[in-house]
Amino acid sequence: MVIIGERINSSRKKIAAAIERQDAEFIKNEVISQKEAGAQYIDVNCGTFLDKETAMMQWLIETVQSVVNAPLCIDSPSADTIKAAVKLCKNKPVIINSITAEEERADAILPTVKEYDTFVVALTMDETGIPRSAEERTKMAERILKFAEKHKVDRKKIYFDPLVQPIGSDQAQGKILLQTIAMIKSLGNTKISCGLSNVSFGLPDRSLLNATFLAMCVAAGLDAVMIDPLNEKLMSTLSAALALTGEDQYCMNYIQRFRKIHEKTAQ
Amino acid sequence: MVIIGERINSSRKKIAAAIERQDAEFIKNEVISQKEAGAQYIDVNCGTFLDKETAMMQWLIETVQSVVNAPLCIDSPSADTIKAAVKLCKNKPVIINSITAEEERADAILPTVKEYDTFVVALTMDETGIPRSAEERTKMAERILKFAEKHKVDRKKIYFDPLVQPIGSDQAQGKILLQTIAMIKSLGNTKISCGLSNVSFGLPDRSLLNATFLAMCVAAGLDAVMIDPLNEKLMSTLSAALALTGEDQYCMNYIQRFRKIHEKTAQ
Repeated sequence: MVIIGERINSSRKKIAAAIERQDAEFIKNEVISQKEAGAQYIDVNCGTFLDKETAMMQWLIETVQSVVNAPLCIDSPSADTIKAAVKLCKNKPVIINSITAEEERADAILPTVKEYDTFVVALTMDETGIPRSAEERTKMAERILKFAEKHKVDRKKIYFDPLVQPIGSDQAQGKILLQTIAMIKSLGNTKISCGLSNVSFGLPDRSLLNATFLAMCVAAGLDAVMIDPLNEKLMSTLSAALALTGEDQYCMNYIQRFRKIHEKTAQ
Repeated sequence: MVIIGERINSSRKKIAAAIERQDAEFIKNEVISQKEAGAQYIDVNCGTFLDKETAMMQWLIETVQSVVNAPLCIDSPSADTIKAAVKLCKNKPVIINSITAEEERADAILPTVKEYDTFVVALTMDETGIPRSAEERTKMAERILKFAEKHKVDRKKIYFDPLVQPIGSDQAQGKILLQTIAMIKSLGNTKISCGLSNVSFGLPDRSLLNATFLAMCVAAGLDAVMIDPLNEKLMSTLSAALALTGEDQYCMNYIQRFRKIHEKTAQ
């Protein structure tokens, strides 16, 4: 399981403020704490800065790389920002986040994926929005696979994101998402990445719903997860889920995590 | 989801002692607390009493029925005890627990299932033990379906129990169990019931593993669960899982449960 730490995102007010005042210490602490909590990739997103995005992204990448060796997940709506950012990344392989089933966007970004041999997150949506059904989302994935073929990008370099939707507004979305994971996996040699927190939007005890849904997604075949690694409930459930699906050999990480928490509590 | 409260089982020392001294108050409290915590069925098992089992089962049934109207899950290794017990059950439908893929045992118990129109738990094992793979366990289920046909018992009356095994001794068992659920469900018009706690045997923080596995099993299609309803972590996860899979319409039970816990904490 690839764990992508999601905290450095300018849609979060504290992060936006830290980027605004170029507070490197604040960002560094966010990086270190995510890495220590188990993040393998650090997502960096400053999309809310619009015309200053590329400059802010450069500062973010330099700041993150000054404290850890973790590879980055370059998260931007702008193809230009992505292209400029990838060149600055020291640790390979980078994840580019994201393309969609829109051909123009794929054509703008896939050459960079190919040139720098990165991974890429591909959202199963297009200019008309997010389709409701698993079948339609899988069709989006198939369209994206064709774009990849055109640009000679290996399908194993793509993390399809089936786009978790709130069950509070459409209760079928939980099952639809799990079906979509299974259908895209059945295309063969495909990987899945998800964010989770959207599922619980508008409902109480969101951590409980997010953690429970994470367990279900892991069993369905999730390969990567965009997550707040400082959320202990989510990380505990992830650890248990990996032990249960045999991805954590001899449950060693699960047992070590338990010991660490136990020691921390005993202090 | 059918929730079967598992606490009244003489393999638990306190329950065995209460049955031994015919402590009706103790048993009644166990029944009431399980019912209040959300159990729909009350499992009764006094199998450790061997030659006194039928008499003890009669006392248990009378004691349970004196305080709640919940239907019972008659849990016994003995066909004679089951037959005697079912006659005493006031609340329908009863669940008989259990038959296996052993023809002799099925022949002894299925006529009672038919006569009293009960449900029956069917363990996917035979005299040679529990098969390791999902395919072999599904073959056991198919054999059991033939027994049911012979005795004209509707297949919808059977809860197949695919027999959760510890991941601590064979780590593939988590995935195998989930596969077995999916394979038995794909036979058509089939129901699945599980106990969970075996999965975490020998590992730390068993509640976390059990709850995480419960979420996975619900997503795989679980219809009934044998559970300690006083375990809040398990019941919270179950509540979230039912909201996520659309079984709890408008997430009403989930929201109500949250409010109740919140009120209790605020007091």
